[in-house]
Amino acid sequence: MQKLIRKQGLGSLLVTSPVNWFYLTGFTGESGILIVEPNRLTLITDGRFTVQAKQEAPSLPVVLQKDGLYRTCGELLKRRSARKAGFDSDQMTVAQLGALRKASGSAVELRETPRLVGSLRAVKDDRELARMRKAAILASEVVEAAIRLLKPGIREFEVAAEIEYQMRKRGASGPAFETIVAFGQRAALPHARPTAKRLKRGQLVVLDLGAILEKYCSDITRTVFVGKAPASVKAWYRGVLEAQAAAIDKVAADRTCGEVDAAARGVLATFQLGQYFVHSTGHGLGLEVHEDPRVAKGQKTLLASGNVVTIEPGVYVPGVGGIRIEDEVVVGKSGNEVLTRASRDFIEL
Amino acid sequence: MQKLIRKQGLGSLLVTSPVNWFYLTGFTGESGILIVEPNRLTLITDGRFTVQAKQEAPSLPVVLQKDGLYRTCGELLKRRSARKAGFDSDQMTVAQLGALRKASGSAVELRETPRLVGSLRAVKDDRELARMRKAAILASEVVEAAIRLLKPGIREFEVAAEIEYQMRKRGASGPAFETIVAFGQRAALPHARPTAKRLKRGQLVVLDLGAILEKYCSDITRTVFVGKAPASVKAWYRGVLEAQAAAIDKVAADRTCGEVDAAARGVLATFQLGQYFVHSTGHGLGLEVHEDPRVAKGQKTLLASGNVVTIEPGVYVPGVGGIRIEDEVVVGKSGNEVLTRASRDFIEL
Repeated sequence: MQKLIRKQGLGSLLVTSPVNWFYLTGFTGESGILIVEPNRLTLITDGRFTVQAKQEAPSLPVVLQKDGLYRTCGELLKRRSARKAGFDSDQMTVAQLGALRKASGSAVELRETPRLVGSLRAVKDDRELARMRKAAILASEVVEAAIRLLKPGIREFEVAAEIEYQMRKRGASGPAFETIVAFGQRAALPHARPTAKRLKRGQLVVLDLGAILEKYCSDITRTVFVGKAPASVKAWYRGVLEAQAAAIDKVAADRTCGEVDAAARGVLATFQLGQYFVHSTGHGLGLEVHEDPRVAKGQKTLLASGNVVTIEPGVYVPGVGGIRIEDEVVVGKSGNEVLTRASRDFIEL
Repeated sequence: MQKLIRKQGLGSLLVTSPVNWFYLTGFTGESGILIVEPNRLTLITDGRFTVQAKQEAPSLPVVLQKDGLYRTCGELLKRRSARKAGFDSDQMTVAQLGALRKASGSAVELRETPRLVGSLRAVKDDRELARMRKAAILASEVVEAAIRLLKPGIREFEVAAEIEYQMRKRGASGPAFETIVAFGQRAALPHARPTAKRLKRGQLVVLDLGAILEKYCSDITRTVFVGKAPASVKAWYRGVLEAQAAAIDKVAADRTCGEVDAAARGVLATFQLGQYFVHSTGHGLGLEVHEDPRVAKGQKTLLASGNVVTIEPGVYVPGVGGIRIEDEVVVGKSGNEVLTRASRDFIEL
């Protein structure tokens, strides 16, 4: 991190998101600012988190905030005659920057340096990948267990409750995002929240879930049919599955994210399904469920060894239903590795 | 809302947080901008949410974003020759404002108008209070069920899993925040996350949990002792309980939030426990678990009929443990109503 700061010509970097300061220091408190300078770190936080900071990051100097976090930070930068303090403009709100500027005064130059920590986090080391493998396998087991629960009459939220219970029982600290369980027409909503709707025969079911295990997120989606599927549904499923395979095949170091996205889109177009694919192909994940890099249309970002991305094409037919298949893929030095393990065969229950 | 905009002299207001546009329109999508003008509403969102928007807010005109949400919004403001567009500076990031300004051009004046929707949301109507009563009773039942689980040998995360499962089983869409289950010394951390630690005799247990039911949050904390408590723990508990009672007693329309906070602090000082109370007395809650008003030291904000706040004093003794008691209180036209219902008597298990 210190190297990156020097490279950017910064005197200091203000780290204002919990997940970023956790990445750099191990402190898990929810409120604070970490000031990174070439030769030292300083954490500003409040009374709720001082004991925790001492336990989790014993060597990290802690300053207690007074009259507001951003004011305390601004005054400290002023006292230290800070020059060129970078901050993440994707994280800091306009009001926070206002409070900071007011307290730091005109001598401190505040500079927008978005995603510096994010760029480090996007490349996972072996210790991180080991954790992500475990989290991905946990999610794979849970999605398979959830499919076994799908009997006509069960409600969406009952399945979601069981999914999250199973995650916890396997040691997860919780779901990585709001679990999606969507039956029938509701499966046409990519981000459907579980309702009291009961499962009927002849419906598609989309299950999209992820767990947090040892801080790292997982994310997997499977779609199954309850009953005997019509030919149209089978054809859509085949289209999505082939689109996913083509995109996974493209995941490799030095390919652009846009190329991966285009591979999925190209296959869906040949199935006449292009118009029903209404989101991007995937996203990075790690300590957060959405992080760099984004796998979307036209993205020029190059994939690098150690990136972990989801590949999750889908088709959504309003009034009918939807199909999405999602797995996690690690970019390797050559080729890639799929972390999630559940079968992708078309299942009719 | 429209009245409030005119009162502020705005031509339009940009609503950029999901919970705020849900409050105004019923749309539950996670990405978008709602533009409120005196005579119309416009939602900008992406393909993942258009079907959902049509279902949830059929009369709301939807514009599909192109080349970025903030860019689309800026271009639309420019085309409409918008004057004085307000935005919530507590929500919008510096990068978002930059993209918006670049696209809207210099003719559109963007104005910081923090918390306008928040000020409306802070006052709950009868329909909202009915939901919050249900959510509070659900959380009260769950905390009582969780206390019955506390046997030596159980792990923190097992209790947390059971708590969240019980919420779901009672119809909650999920926890309102990360459930806190803290045994022994870990109870000295106000925001402890559940670990694999096993419960032993002679330990304090803090349970802090809340559920989301029909979109509204609840929040309750209880502290119990496993075994026969020493006199010191009993005295701390009495101090926290009396501090809470004194603060609840102060909750009424036209009192300042600071007065309520001071009541809790005053009692703890008489018990020689002032130094161990390291956070503020409470916070508003509703669609979010932390919203206006804040019940903190020196806060001049006046309570108003329809506000719902938590009252949650606590003492935290590093290396020993902590005690917190939290309930939800509605400000009435005269006096107040406590929504959460679990017993506050000192329990030795």
